Amino acid sequence: MKLASTIRTIPDFPKPGIMFRDITTLLGDAQAFTLAVDELVGAFAGTDIDKVACIEARGFILGGAVAHILGAGVVPLRKKGKLPHDRISSAYQLEYGMDIIEMHTDAIESGERVLLIDDLIATGGTAMAGIDLLKRGGAEIVGAAFVIDLPDLGGARRLEAVGIKVVSLVGFDGH
Amino acid sequence: MKLASTIRTIPDFPKPGIMFRDITTLLGDAQAFTLAVDELVGAFAGTDIDKVACIEARGFILGGAVAHILGAGVVPLRKKGKLPHDRISSAYQLEYGMDIIEMHTDAIESGERVLLIDDLIATGGTAMAGIDLLKRGGAEIVGAAFVIDLPDLGGARRLEAVGIKVVSLVGFDGH
Repeated sequence: MKLASTIRTIPDFPKPGIMFRDITTLLGDAQAFTLAVDELVGAFAGTDIDKVACIEARGFILGGAVAHILGAGVVPLRKKGKLPHDRISSAYQLEYGMDIIEMHTDAIESGERVLLIDDLIATGGTAMAGIDLLKRGGAEIVGAAFVIDLPDLGGARRLEAVGIKVVSLVGFDGH
Repeated sequence: MKLASTIRTIPDFPKPGIMFRDITTLLGDAQAFTLAVDELVGAFAGTDIDKVACIEARGFILGGAVAHILGAGVVPLRKKGKLPHDRISSAYQLEYGMDIIEMHTDAIESGERVLLIDDLIATGGTAMAGIDLLKRGGAEIVGAAFVIDLPDLGGARRLEAVGIKVVSLVGFDGH
């Protein structure tokens, strides 16, 4: 099975010029979803992982499945204002303006080994903000894994440049 | 292990008078997360399930894990404006005003057997809106499962009154 063929491309969403890679068609295909999760986990076989951090919202679907296979806990990295307890936040650049993700301050114990999961890496802004939160929380980051990489946008290289192992399953040209 | 003891209660969040049940402490506890997911799945042992529908955002973490164990596909039920393709929507009552959740029109094939997952059922407004979407999409609903039930708010009874099997793992008095 080719995972790429289960991903739907929607031109001009959410705005003109963007080729949106829609993974709902992959998620809804039981074989493709199973394969994607197993490949994300398999890329870290033999690595001790205490927790899986995942980025709201699509990253939650993949992160929950990956964490359960690993017998790991889940750390949700959420949009601003969603987490109810003491938290830290990290801002990142969007095409226009900034956005913020947050993590509970007690989400990680110092030295815990954490895998970051999201559905897609583009410029890497969200992932780098997540890595910032995890490091400030005391995590040892074992890697970051994505179903889709848009390599032209350089996100994977940004993460690798700070020593993060990056795994992705499908690459698409352009953005 | 008592799952209830892994859930944190935050008084007056998001507003005065609300006792917010925070499952991030359960999610972050590997044993508790594993147990919760296994119990949600175990409640439907022997039932054929084609797809797991889960409600944004916390429901995604549990739904992804449940779907992977079952070898099922995932149907994300999302907040308004997040799904990129043709969709149907369902409105539900909040304490003040209305909210909307949406589903892709091609998320379900007629007759597919679908399990609905969310983290918590209170008045059942969101779950009933999800069931409305699933039925309009042609699903046969095998049940709805939640980590937390607030039975005083009557949501589980609302679902049962329309013939839905409801499973929950932890009940809390009040709201």
